[in-house]
Amino acid sequence: MHILILGAAGMVGRKLVERLAADGHLGGRTITELTLFDVVEAPPVEGVKSRSLAGDISGPGQVERLVAARPDVIFHLAAVVSGEAEADFEKGYRINLDGTRSLFEAVRRSGDGYHPRVVFTSSVAVFGAPFPEPGIHDEYLCAPLTSYGTQKAIGELLLGDYSRRGVFDGVGIRLPTICVRPGRPNKAASGFFSNIIREPLNGLEAVLPVGEDVRHWHASPRSAVEFLLHAATLDTSLLGPRRSLTMPGISVTVGEQIEALRRVAGADAIRLIRREPDPAIIRMVSSWPERFVADRAESLGFTSERSFEDIIRVYIEDELGGRLGA
Amino acid sequence: MHILILGAAGMVGRKLVERLAADGHLGGRTITELTLFDVVEAPPVEGVKSRSLAGDISGPGQVERLVAARPDVIFHLAAVVSGEAEADFEKGYRINLDGTRSLFEAVRRSGDGYHPRVVFTSSVAVFGAPFPEPGIHDEYLCAPLTSYGTQKAIGELLLGDYSRRGVFDGVGIRLPTICVRPGRPNKAASGFFSNIIREPLNGLEAVLPVGEDVRHWHASPRSAVEFLLHAATLDTSLLGPRRSLTMPGISVTVGEQIEALRRVAGADAIRLIRREPDPAIIRMVSSWPERFVADRAESLGFTSERSFEDIIRVYIEDELGGRLGA
Repeated sequence: MHILILGAAGMVGRKLVERLAADGHLGGRTITELTLFDVVEAPPVEGVKSRSLAGDISGPGQVERLVAARPDVIFHLAAVVSGEAEADFEKGYRINLDGTRSLFEAVRRSGDGYHPRVVFTSSVAVFGAPFPEPGIHDEYLCAPLTSYGTQKAIGELLLGDYSRRGVFDGVGIRLPTICVRPGRPNKAASGFFSNIIREPLNGLEAVLPVGEDVRHWHASPRSAVEFLLHAATLDTSLLGPRRSLTMPGISVTVGEQIEALRRVAGADAIRLIRREPDPAIIRMVSSWPERFVADRAESLGFTSERSFEDIIRVYIEDELGGRLGA
Repeated sequence: MHILILGAAGMVGRKLVERLAADGHLGGRTITELTLFDVVEAPPVEGVKSRSLAGDISGPGQVERLVAARPDVIFHLAAVVSGEAEADFEKGYRINLDGTRSLFEAVRRSGDGYHPRVVFTSSVAVFGAPFPEPGIHDEYLCAPLTSYGTQKAIGELLLGDYSRRGVFDGVGIRLPTICVRPGRPNKAASGFFSNIIREPLNGLEAVLPVGEDVRHWHASPRSAVEFLLHAATLDTSLLGPRRSLTMPGISVTVGEQIEALRRVAGADAIRLIRREPDPAIIRMVSSWPERFVADRAESLGFTSERSFEDIIRVYIEDELGGRLGA
């Protein structure tokens, strides 16, 4: 089985690649080759034959060359992130819309019975306020409030139509905010959700730019990889024509995140969180989704953590070797 | 005021043009020029300076030339219809998606404070079964089951994002099935909804390919024109970021249509309806929307007929000079 991963050098992409290489199989079939594609060359992996290629998904002939090798499964994680797609209108549409569409077109044009599984990572950014109570359910309107969310919602529509027409077998998964992100604080507006946990766990100070009553939807990087693997192996006859699913997660307030951190790492850890309200971030976050009722995904076997403490423990296990204390 | 109409030679487009020319003004401003664009040259109109151009909306430079004249209002009705978009995948995407996007891009690239009202005709085909009871409401998921519906749903998303970013002031209107369509029976799968009324009113036989229990959502051509005019003049500050609206209409079964015809035109008329079940049409129609709760549009002042008899009377007034009997 040949697997193509677009966006293989990103945080979730790398974890997916490592997991596939460690498993050596997917859905009962042996993995014979991994093709890793991103704007930069993804680091090599051990255990499975792999090939890293760097390029622009929207470049002429690029996805056609990748699809010509007829991968059995295509994980499409490549995207310009929310902040950049908002700041650079043309780049966002070029990568997130045209790049996705040219991938789908490359599969369609290859013809000859080629019918891969395509796993498309969408986002909860396809939803925009106001939201229903008790949470956004599976039949709620996609009404994005960002260009990124618009591009992901369009990707979902294309995925549905190309799947319905038998071009490929598509599954779209709307990822929660991934928490706790490893690495250093980044400029993403949502970065603080991870920063306020990761930095204190590493003995470092973190900035909290919003109030403790801000509620959001989270899953761990480990869950994100599990979502991807399950989407790649799921019996899609159970899906029907609605090919995109909101993934399960945990809805917590920032206050509840901090309390979970205190329970896991003690009062010293939470003293490292410095309140520094940022009106721009407060405004942005106010229109973000707070909670979901992910019934369809759960009934199809997608699972995530059960509490925010579980999410913190995943970080400690996967990134700190299971040990607390910097 | 300069108005551009894309799709000006179609049935609704022609009626819109005639109405604009007859009124001579829109939203209190005098119409100084109409530009009529379609794949064929639209017939000239009296009373207002007008210019008819034929071309392909997706042709290089085409929409740019139309937008360069900086029309104050753009009515975008140009589309490949449902059946053709399903039969010709590439043409459907080229006209309905790329054509719409290049129009929006042409406005964006013109810059310099140009900010027209853009009225985009969408369709109830953005919805796909299963549907909620008692009808499809304003927060229901767009889950199209045709390429046409997919392309219209994508157009709505683009309209929302371009409006949010201040490129133009967009309003999307999802038209019900337009009934009674004037002219001769056509090959559209939905054609019978009009045929079974129009043909008997003209003393001709009509074929009914589905059962009498089939329920559907209708508005007259006159209402369609009213929707377009209202969308062009509406205070969009009332709309918020959700720029597309399901238009009001009448939900009736085919049996109720026939009964309305009997009341308006007598028992002889309904005897001209010949039952000839067509499994392909029966299958297609089974996934079409049956009824809506068009609260938002109604609260914003969009109105339609109150009964199917009203819809029949509009046909008699507008197409038969108010006189029954062929």
